[in-house]
Amino acid sequence: MNTLALTKIPYGMFIISSAFNGKIGGQVANTVFQINSDPATIAISISKQNNTHNLLSNSKKAVISVLTEEASFEFIGKFGFKSSRDFNKFATTEYKLNASGIPIVTEFTNSYFETEIVSQFETNTHTLFLCKVLNCEILNDNLTMTYSYYHKVKKGLTPKNAPTFIK
Amino acid sequence: MNTLALTKIPYGMFIISSAFNGKIGGQVANTVFQINSDPATIAISISKQNNTHNLLSNSKKAVISVLTEEASFEFIGKFGFKSSRDFNKFATTEYKLNASGIPIVTEFTNSYFETEIVSQFETNTHTLFLCKVLNCEILNDNLTMTYSYYHKVKKGLTPKNAPTFIK
Repeated sequence: MNTLALTKIPYGMFIISSAFNGKIGGQVANTVFQINSDPATIAISISKQNNTHNLLSNSKKAVISVLTEEASFEFIGKFGFKSSRDFNKFATTEYKLNASGIPIVTEFTNSYFETEIVSQFETNTHTLFLCKVLNCEILNDNLTMTYSYYHKVKKGLTPKNAPTFIK
Repeated sequence: MNTLALTKIPYGMFIISSAFNGKIGGQVANTVFQINSDPATIAISISKQNNTHNLLSNSKKAVISVLTEEASFEFIGKFGFKSSRDFNKFATTEYKLNASGIPIVTEFTNSYFETEIVSQFETNTHTLFLCKVLNCEILNDNLTMTYSYYHKVKKGLTPKNAPTFIK
């Protein structure tokens, strides 16, 4: 068994954001995929240890912003390796709030999805949230950052709570 | 709402195969992602109308073979637009059978995962199968075919039963 085979699966790079009780938060995620076209439904896998997990579980709403290749190492580090519990990631981020008060990231992104969580599925370490798309928009035609681009070009690391972390 | 935003999400290209009662079958899928690292668990979304869905539901076993950029248009067409119900896709495909009698595709692939389906989650048109990795191996270092490569370079189409089909 060679667990490096798992690195052969391609992903994009995304910011998952939410809001509850007036608190906003968000994190980088790569494990995002469409599971159904009618209604359009997207699944995301989020660590139970992350603050974003609490916000999603409570609000039942998620915004998925799709990152582009222009996203800086510092920008991704801010959303990937720090917690919204003790750091305001959005203080230095360009965003707009949607009608539910959830930040839509408008820098280093090419599109976004406003979703309602219709179901969630527990594994031992991560929750799979099933997100029905209520609205989605394209912002520009910049290329989506892939996970392999992040690793190869940006020399990026993977946090230990990521579903795709390999020891 | 611009549903073309859904095309900004990157995917890889895979063959999902299974076997039940001495019958083998498989299909192309792009909606494959890791949801958990310990134990390594992969989620796949498969249309309820597909023969592979029946095999997976009955056998509770899946092999995921990762396609490379070398995969021909004809090869993908064979696994994407025909049904194992009335066509033996493996008659003209290089593969080996694993201990459960499931084909591991050995042409146009760089790695594979032998999995056990530990849970499944129903949506109206697709089932999300949660597949625990029992074994995985790397075959070579050829690049994984991405969904955008398939569309842009191979000029490929999307079958109407795919989770990412857009009208």
